[in-house]
Amino acid sequence: MPELRHDPIQKRWVIIASDRGLRPDDFPELEQNGPGGFCPFCEGNESKTPPEIAAIRYNGRGPNSPGWRVRVVPNKFPALRIEGDLDRKGIGIHDRMNGVGAHEVIIETPRHDLGLADMPVEDLGRVIWMYRERLIDLLRDSRFKYILVFKNYGAAAGASLSHPHTQLIATPVTPLTIAEELTSARDHYRYKERCLFCDVIEQEIESGERIVLANDRVVAIAPYASRFPFELFLAPRHHHHSFAEISDGMIQDLAAALKEVLLRIKKCLNDPPYNFLIHTIPNVKTTPKRTAYWDTIAVDYHWHIEIMPRLTRIAGFEWGTGFYINPTAPEEAAKYLREVEL
Amino acid sequence: MPELRHDPIQKRWVIIASDRGLRPDDFPELEQNGPGGFCPFCEGNESKTPPEIAAIRYNGRGPNSPGWRVRVVPNKFPALRIEGDLDRKGIGIHDRMNGVGAHEVIIETPRHDLGLADMPVEDLGRVIWMYRERLIDLLRDSRFKYILVFKNYGAAAGASLSHPHTQLIATPVTPLTIAEELTSARDHYRYKERCLFCDVIEQEIESGERIVLANDRVVAIAPYASRFPFELFLAPRHHHHSFAEISDGMIQDLAAALKEVLLRIKKCLNDPPYNFLIHTIPNVKTTPKRTAYWDTIAVDYHWHIEIMPRLTRIAGFEWGTGFYINPTAPEEAAKYLREVEL
Repeated sequence: MPELRHDPIQKRWVIIASDRGLRPDDFPELEQNGPGGFCPFCEGNESKTPPEIAAIRYNGRGPNSPGWRVRVVPNKFPALRIEGDLDRKGIGIHDRMNGVGAHEVIIETPRHDLGLADMPVEDLGRVIWMYRERLIDLLRDSRFKYILVFKNYGAAAGASLSHPHTQLIATPVTPLTIAEELTSARDHYRYKERCLFCDVIEQEIESGERIVLANDRVVAIAPYASRFPFELFLAPRHHHHSFAEISDGMIQDLAAALKEVLLRIKKCLNDPPYNFLIHTIPNVKTTPKRTAYWDTIAVDYHWHIEIMPRLTRIAGFEWGTGFYINPTAPEEAAKYLREVEL
Repeated sequence: MPELRHDPIQKRWVIIASDRGLRPDDFPELEQNGPGGFCPFCEGNESKTPPEIAAIRYNGRGPNSPGWRVRVVPNKFPALRIEGDLDRKGIGIHDRMNGVGAHEVIIETPRHDLGLADMPVEDLGRVIWMYRERLIDLLRDSRFKYILVFKNYGAAAGASLSHPHTQLIATPVTPLTIAEELTSARDHYRYKERCLFCDVIEQEIESGERIVLANDRVVAIAPYASRFPFELFLAPRHHHHSFAEISDGMIQDLAAALKEVLLRIKKCLNDPPYNFLIHTIPNVKTTPKRTAYWDTIAVDYHWHIEIMPRLTRIAGFEWGTGFYINPTAPEEAAKYLREVEL
């Protein structure tokens, strides 16, 4: 059973996946499967994944057979396990709980070679629809405090399979960075009675110099204090706190915006590896004794997607401090991304 | 002039090194210089670095000539600049200040191929002595709030030159991770009237299962909630808050312990890339108006060195959340490191 452990000094939780038990000779980990290798995510190989959790199908065939558009399966090597109680307890100064959670893979398309940047907007819309469905389903489980939806694209960004896919991890704690954002949003709301994110978005739209894309519903910004070159922040233009509650209309607008942004990154930066991560509110329905103060005040939050091209090596300085050196000003990055030919 | 920018959502500071101005075609950045290439850090090439700041010499020759043991020079491509005022101000919701600071390189040895793990303990002691000297010198400058001493070993850990060297960055703000640790230490001290780090160290020594090295003065622990496989925490066994105030005796003990730990990592993990970072108190002598609350309570802190072998790829999940998956239990890592033959 994997274990969640808490560091009392840096206040972070870590998943100790000791059932993976990697030993000194096991590093570096396996490389990505190349073209021509066997792919368990391709259509026709459904029996090579664990049984599916959900799928979008149009031809009336049963689960775990071909004919799907989007397919969700459990991760074959899950970081967390779905069964069991949390059993949170102190061990002297340390804290631990069982590694209970969910770890799923959302296979975005049956086609091995069709990335999000290149697929039709309707297909990308189905992928986002599936994100929302999985969130809604998993939020019913009161053991899960947070549902993380994230994508690793390219080996350098951590993808171990090249077939287009997104991952989802449901965790029994709210991650540190999200908790920090929730706290910032709460503090700003108390002080100003306005949403912090709305204020940032409005200021950026007025200035314009860091905007990559803006329409009535969605905005993509190179953040003023970007940690990484060409980092982007994609968010609904109007206040909304919960990705699990986005409308069907927003799914369509978001699909169009996300496709455009990913295509701009691909064209401008020669198809770089990237990560994206959806930031949304925690599961506010969980039992009070497991609820930290930031988990109770979620409507002043503003969901968004963080997109991080992986262009530079991250050195010890950044690792140990949370203090980043970014060699490309976000104004420049936004300009390049706006002006690239699509 | 580089700029420091503050993110109001994640509360982090970022150095925007816009004078580097990397454009889309500039990625990936240059690779490490291989064997046989020209090295500006090698003895005899002193004129190829900016003029030296400090050096340990025994033969009475002048600065910027051969005959040194340890040599400190300004970084040729500094992330921060030594001249100027901070000029901190708000730009609407954002915060910025000038990128004032210091960025130095501590060349650990005249020899291109002699790493810290392999050099004699006395040589490593001279390197640590120089860390302390540079800290003492830079702490006199009230513009600098924090002095970071860190090492990137190997290209995958961010080293752009392979000649053994450490870097130092003096910044006008305390980095987020350090601030978090200072706050944890303060909270624990208020609650328990004991040092948080001392409590952790004592519990670890009693248990023993995560100890890699422990003598009367220094302890090396695989932290209970290690983020990375084979991550280590090296600290003085008895309470001490400031690396700039370590004794000559501690320098010798620390040199012996650091060498042993790095050698164990090298032997056990096939000479992996790694980072280490010294965590110490902020510059408490800076002017009050620039001082956050955590900068005033530093004696309850406990200096230490964080050592992070770079064995796994860091994926989007970790990036965006501060929530890590570690595939090797620290108890296992400590056992492997203890048992490896030196």
